Amino acid sequence: MTSSSLSPLEKSTIKRQIFHGTFVHCKTLTDLEILHDTYVFVDEHGVIVKILSGDGTGGPRDLREDVGELGWDTDVDDEGEIFEYVGSSKDEDGKHGEERFFFPGFIDTHIHAPQYPNSGLFGSSTLLDWLNTYTFPLEASLSALPKARAIYSRVIQRTLSHGTTTAAYYATIHVESTNLLADLCLQKGQRALVGRCCMDSDSGANPDYYRDDNPTQSLERTKNCISHCENIDPDRKLITPILTPRFAPSCTPQLMSSLGGIAREKDLPIQTHISENRSEIQWVKELFPECDSYTDVYDKYSCLTSKTILAHAVHIGEDEAALIRERGSGIAHCPVSNSALTSGMARVRWMIDRGLNVGLGTDVSGGFSASVLAAAREASCVSRCAAAGTGASENTNGKERDTLSVPEVLYLATRGGAKVVGMEDKIGGFEVGKIWDAQLIGLGKPLMCRKEDDWEGQEETHEVEVSQTGPVDIFGWENWDEKVAKWVFNGDDRNTMKVWVNGRLVHQRKN
Amino acid sequence: MTSSSLSPLEKSTIKRQIFHGTFVHCKTLTDLEILHDTYVFVDEHGVIVKILSGDGTGGPRDLREDVGELGWDTDVDDEGEIFEYVGSSKDEDGKHGEERFFFPGFIDTHIHAPQYPNSGLFGSSTLLDWLNTYTFPLEASLSALPKARAIYSRVIQRTLSHGTTTAAYYATIHVESTNLLADLCLQKGQRALVGRCCMDSDSGANPDYYRDDNPTQSLERTKNCISHCENIDPDRKLITPILTPRFAPSCTPQLMSSLGGIAREKDLPIQTHISENRSEIQWVKELFPECDSYTDVYDKYSCLTSKTILAHAVHIGEDEAALIRERGSGIAHCPVSNSALTSGMARVRWMIDRGLNVGLGTDVSGGFSASVLAAAREASCVSRCAAAGTGASENTNGKERDTLSVPEVLYLATRGGAKVVGMEDKIGGFEVGKIWDAQLIGLGKPLMCRKEDDWEGQEETHEVEVSQTGPVDIFGWENWDEKVAKWVFNGDDRNTMKVWVNGRLVHQRKN
Repeated sequence: MTSSSLSPLEKSTIKRQIFHGTFVHCKTLTDLEILHDTYVFVDEHGVIVKILSGDGTGGPRDLREDVGELGWDTDVDDEGEIFEYVGSSKDEDGKHGEERFFFPGFIDTHIHAPQYPNSGLFGSSTLLDWLNTYTFPLEASLSALPKARAIYSRVIQRTLSHGTTTAAYYATIHVESTNLLADLCLQKGQRALVGRCCMDSDSGANPDYYRDDNPTQSLERTKNCISHCENIDPDRKLITPILTPRFAPSCTPQLMSSLGGIAREKDLPIQTHISENRSEIQWVKELFPECDSYTDVYDKYSCLTSKTILAHAVHIGEDEAALIRERGSGIAHCPVSNSALTSGMARVRWMIDRGLNVGLGTDVSGGFSASVLAAAREASCVSRCAAAGTGASENTNGKERDTLSVPEVLYLATRGGAKVVGMEDKIGGFEVGKIWDAQLIGLGKPLMCRKEDDWEGQEETHEVEVSQTGPVDIFGWENWDEKVAKWVFNGDDRNTMKVWVNGRLVHQRKN
Repeated sequence: MTSSSLSPLEKSTIKRQIFHGTFVHCKTLTDLEILHDTYVFVDEHGVIVKILSGDGTGGPRDLREDVGELGWDTDVDDEGEIFEYVGSSKDEDGKHGEERFFFPGFIDTHIHAPQYPNSGLFGSSTLLDWLNTYTFPLEASLSALPKARAIYSRVIQRTLSHGTTTAAYYATIHVESTNLLADLCLQKGQRALVGRCCMDSDSGANPDYYRDDNPTQSLERTKNCISHCENIDPDRKLITPILTPRFAPSCTPQLMSSLGGIAREKDLPIQTHISENRSEIQWVKELFPECDSYTDVYDKYSCLTSKTILAHAVHIGEDEAALIRERGSGIAHCPVSNSALTSGMARVRWMIDRGLNVGLGTDVSGGFSASVLAAAREASCVSRCAAAGTGASENTNGKERDTLSVPEVLYLATRGGAKVVGMEDKIGGFEVGKIWDAQLIGLGKPLMCRKEDDWEGQEETHEVEVSQTGPVDIFGWENWDEKVAKWVFNGDDRNTMKVWVNGRLVHQRKN
């Protein structure tokens, strides 16, 4: 596929839009802001240009003056120019309305697109045997473009359906397939960092059938992919190439240093893995005896920058955390993957306390789920498991501070992730100047309509067929923090009704 | 609701049925048996009377002789008498068929029906404050029958939709509401153990607004509920009353001893909580200084029987495990709840090694999900988290044996649970003499049709709208163990197409 054959989506101009309803986003790590009866104005570039509160009645507000101030056509009914999207709906009596809210798009800071078909397949393997058993054979097979096209189309379609508006993708070592992934992200409208896997070492980490022959070849291939991205999206409106030394054992120092050089020269991000598994760490120590730590390997070979995404970091020590903080690199916390591959429980509170930037990654297919919401849920669960220990542990009271709250895991999934991918000025929250990368969440109609707290009286309930509703049950008496919590713990893609990137509608649920 | 107003469901006679397709069940803890092209004959009582292999062609087999041997009407086309259900479908060319299999119904060994509306709501609380903040106020409000009816209808509907054919329910302290729960289970066709919560202590565990006044009152109320169950389902075909001393801190020794007496007299099961949380354990030690351990409290006061379900058991010690094994009581492992409430990671392998019977419980709403499949998934994840520890842990290599495999968590969800609820002779697997409590799992059509391993050649793929498919993507090259693993890790109620209890269809997905 070449850029000329792309669908009209990425080239079409979009309308100016006004969204109205309830907006939920993370102002800070702990502060979940919930704005009701609010209007968000998005211009033809997908940029939020104005945010207004309603008049308090919840009823429609006259927007002509506000629209005029923006220099927009004041005839809000003018066909095609501006439309108003109502994100919340209510019946005439203000009850029984569908519970809806806008939320920032999720940011998946770590996902391997070619591994998607292996989601859920890992047996009892851990990192190093998992790579050889499940991962490398599948990745190698994506040299076939039809297979790559089918898999990449599906993973983009799926992640969009889960509300992922930005994904930091690892592709394979293949130039053409990697370029196809970039094309498909652009075509389907997903913001993406796309990286060809660089793996040139003969350390034993890379199988003979699936590796770059030498640093020079690896660099040439990588430059081809960068050129392709620059060609199809010169302003990086959606697609950013990302340098992707797979992980230290699979790369020579020469390759890593060269990639670091390109990153500096072209102002490009880097992504790699770090300190996922104890055997891996031990191996890195043996492979790089000249380095003080796993982190020091990347630092010594120019890959630890303020635009580096480090996946996992489960077992990093104090010195490493300090170095990562100094360099300003970010952490992709991948709790589902770490649980599945028996890698260990990353200490997120510990990282945050040390000033590290942390986002969430699905790490498909080390992680079995392509959903960032599922990763947020597992981040919460794992933090609690780590805080409480096992039945054999000593009393661990006092570690309750380590548990991650609903606002905190949602922060990691949005604003935290935005920092990790180096786009905190553009995405992750609802503010003037930010881009409209968003999802509309629907929780269905409340099951009950309680009248004056009188449960003994006439009770209106409607029995809803389970098949027709999403996974979340709202009974009608929950406050908004509770509605959001119900979404986090029981929600799934059925609740993600619409998804926008750069102001464009890129997914809409049909049911 | 009285039994006379029940729907025809529980009274209707059912047809003799023959099911055909792929059957998956757990023969032992580690052996997942997958039977293709198999016929299962279910008689008019819902009992499996014959299991046959097909003729190997996958095509239809002449069943007249087999049917005749059973004494059934040999005219298999006789309307209404026998029908054949094809659980797997294929296109004419044998490809692109929907991936389907029959699986035993799930057994939820621990669930609080009245807490269902609080699913996902627990904040940062742990057991004892969670009870007072979230749980008791909601449970107390179910004295109102309309509210109880709405909530109980929904939780039964939801759990059936997740494939739960048997549930061990805690109700509230209210007699009428508890009886209503039994009525609704019978009406909707779910096998259930239904227990009125007994809680008479003034230890501080029970709030003044929600407790039994004294042991005598608690016993009288409990006997009323037992009588009701005996009245609506005298043969315990679906409904079994269960004695439910809430947990040691909420019960007087006198009450527990009396409940133990009733259990013996009427051959009834008992359910309670044990050793969920460290503060709770410490409190039990203070409340019952005459007892050697938490387990010893139940043993001393006659509640530790071969029909006792002990929920959680996160922190039990060696002596307690030995005592539980000696008495033959079962453990309801509730991993989602234990994660959510920061209770700790139960050591399931350790329990199994000590000969304990272990099943899975959702523990709604300590657990946020009503799905046993989600509990199975979390059991796997938690076992891996416990085995690997945190970044701060010592090297824990060698604990990999503690991780639970896909067959093992499915065993806990079915056959393990059957033992825990004392029904291992009736449910949990597909054998002649067992009851047809089953679910039909559908994984959709494979996304690709690979021809002769030639990915470079003409590739048939069909792009499927995400909204129209379930959460699992089958690409077409997975073996059956892998299909089952994909279901376990990414499946949900969308994959549960039909559910039967006692041979009756009690849930069918409409989409």
